[in-house]
Amino acid sequence: MDVAYPRTIVAVDVGGTKIAGAVVSYGRSGVSPAILHERTIPTDASRGGNAVLDDIVRLALELIAACDEPPLGVGVGTAGCVDPLAGSIAFANDLMPGWTGQPVAARLREATALPVAVMGDVHAHALGEARWGAARGMQSCLCVAAGTGLGGAFVADGAVMRGFRGAAGHLGHVQSPLAAGIPCACGASGHLESIASGTGLGILFDRLFPARAGEVAGGADVSRLAAAGDADAIEVLQASGRALGEALGSWANTFDPEVIVLSGSVLAAGEPWRAGMREGFASMVMPLMRDTPIVDAALGGHAPLVGASENLLDTVTL
Amino acid sequence: MDVAYPRTIVAVDVGGTKIAGAVVSYGRSGVSPAILHERTIPTDASRGGNAVLDDIVRLALELIAACDEPPLGVGVGTAGCVDPLAGSIAFANDLMPGWTGQPVAARLREATALPVAVMGDVHAHALGEARWGAARGMQSCLCVAAGTGLGGAFVADGAVMRGFRGAAGHLGHVQSPLAAGIPCACGASGHLESIASGTGLGILFDRLFPARAGEVAGGADVSRLAAAGDADAIEVLQASGRALGEALGSWANTFDPEVIVLSGSVLAAGEPWRAGMREGFASMVMPLMRDTPIVDAALGGHAPLVGASENLLDTVTL
Repeated sequence: MDVAYPRTIVAVDVGGTKIAGAVVSYGRSGVSPAILHERTIPTDASRGGNAVLDDIVRLALELIAACDEPPLGVGVGTAGCVDPLAGSIAFANDLMPGWTGQPVAARLREATALPVAVMGDVHAHALGEARWGAARGMQSCLCVAAGTGLGGAFVADGAVMRGFRGAAGHLGHVQSPLAAGIPCACGASGHLESIASGTGLGILFDRLFPARAGEVAGGADVSRLAAAGDADAIEVLQASGRALGEALGSWANTFDPEVIVLSGSVLAAGEPWRAGMREGFASMVMPLMRDTPIVDAALGGHAPLVGASENLLDTVTL
Repeated sequence: MDVAYPRTIVAVDVGGTKIAGAVVSYGRSGVSPAILHERTIPTDASRGGNAVLDDIVRLALELIAACDEPPLGVGVGTAGCVDPLAGSIAFANDLMPGWTGQPVAARLREATALPVAVMGDVHAHALGEARWGAARGMQSCLCVAAGTGLGGAFVADGAVMRGFRGAAGHLGHVQSPLAAGIPCACGASGHLESIASGTGLGILFDRLFPARAGEVAGGADVSRLAAAGDADAIEVLQASGRALGEALGSWANTFDPEVIVLSGSVLAAGEPWRAGMREGFASMVMPLMRDTPIVDAALGGHAPLVGASENLLDTVTL
C-alpha cells in the first residue's frame, strides 16, 4: 500500500474509567499529527468485557464516519496485557472484570473492515512520547507513569519492549526498601508502587505517621497538606520521591536510556517530591549514566492516542 | 552477498584477564555451530590498550589463516562499553587501562580486509545463549552473569538491548536493601553487585560476621566453608541468593522475559544459595510472571564467541 499524505487513523484509548477516541491526522512528513474529533465515554467496566468492547466498536465506527477521507485503520491502546500476535487481552486485573480474553483486534477488524493494531495503553503512551513527544528523535527512552498506579515502558530504536506475555514495563512492581512489608495490589509485597504512586503517597503517609491515619485519601491530599506547610506531608513527599528516584537510577543503569520521561498525577506533587527524586537518582546512578535527562512528558492525555496510531502505522506497509 | 553453508566466522572474546579466539563453523542451517581452533592468550591489560589491540589483531589473523575456507568476517565481544555505530570502546574501567577509545572495528577491518562487528562481551554472551544456548527458540531472555562482578543483558526477538551508550545491562548496579550503605565499585553505593557477585559474597560475609573478617577472600571461600557445615557461611549464601532472587523477581516484572538464564561462578555456590534465590524470586515476582523459568546457561565459556559470531552474521547480508 503506497500511502501519500494526509494520513488518517482512528485511535482509541481504553482505560479503567474512561474510553477516549479521536481521529489522528498526519498532514505531512515530520509534522506532529493533529488530534481531531476527540470524544470520551465512561468505561463503566462493571458491566463486563463484552459491553465495553461493544462500546469501543461503536466509538470506532463513529470516528470512522467523522473522517474526511477513509482512515488507514484503527489503533487501540488498552488497559491490560495485550497478546502481541492476536491483539486480544491476555490478562486484565479486577478493575476490568471480563476484559481478559476479549478479542479486541478481531472484533474491530470484522466491524470496520480496516486494519487494526492493539497494544497496552502504557506501551501506547510511551510510543507516543517516543515518536512525537518528550523523547522525539531520541535513540531510546524509559517512560515512567506515576498516577493511581505506577507503570511504564521502554522504547528503543522506535520499538516498544512488549515482553513475552505483553506484560513488560510493570515498573511499579520492583523491590523498594521503603516499601518493605507493605502488601502490593499485585499480590506480592515490598513493591515500589505501594509507596510511590498517587495511592502509594497516601499509604506512605499512614505508615510514617500512624497517628494521623485516615487524614489523607491519596497523593493529592498529601500534596495539599505539604503546600500548606505540613511538615509530615513534606517528609512523605521527599521520601516517596527519593524512592522513585532510586528506582530511576537503577533503571538508568539497567536500560541505559537516552532520556527518562515522567508522566502522571504524581508529577504535580510539588518541589519536595522533585528534590527527593533527584537526590534518590543521584545516589543510585552509575557515573556513566549520571547525565541521563529526566524530563516531563509532553503530550499529556493525547500520548496513548498518538502511540496507538503510530502502532497502526507500523503494521501497514507505507 | 549470498552465502551458502558452510559458514565460517572468526570470533574473539576480550576479557580483563584473557583473550579467547576461535573459528566458529556453521555446517548447516539449524545445527549448532562448532568451535574450532580455540586458543587463549593472557590480556596483560596493564600494558595498555594499544598493546591489547595489537594482540587481538594478531590472534584474528592467525585464526583467519587457520580457516579451511575464507571466513565471512570477524566478530568481537569485548570488555567495556562498545559504541554500537563505530565499534570502538566508548568506556572501559580501570581493569583495562587505555582501552577506552580503542578503534577495535576499524583496526581489525584494516588488518583483515574483512567485515568486522564488535559488541560488549556480556551482550555477546547473552546473544550466544539466546541463539544457540539455554534460550534457543525463546522470544526473549534475561541473562544474568554472577561472577567476579554481576552483569547481564536482555535479548528480545533476536536482538540484544544495547542502550544509548552501549551500557545497557548493568544489572549489578540496581538498588538492593541488603547492600544499603556498602560502597560499590562503580562509585555509587547500595548496589546488588556488592553483595551478590562472587566478590560480594566475601563482602557480605565480612559485613554479617565482622568478628570473622579476613577469613574469606570471596565466594569460593564462602562456598567451601558452607559445604563443610559452617552455619555463618550458609547464612551468607542464603541471604545473598535471596537478594539476587528478589532482583530476578523485579526484573521478571520489568522485562517479562520468556526465560531467565543464569551463568557465572556464583552458580556453583551450593544449595543454600539456590534455595535463597528461589525464595527471593517468589517474594517479588507478580503472579502473572511467577512461572518464568530460571535456568542455567548452556554454552559455558563458548557463549561470548558464539554471540560475537552471530553478531557478525547479523551485519552481513546472507
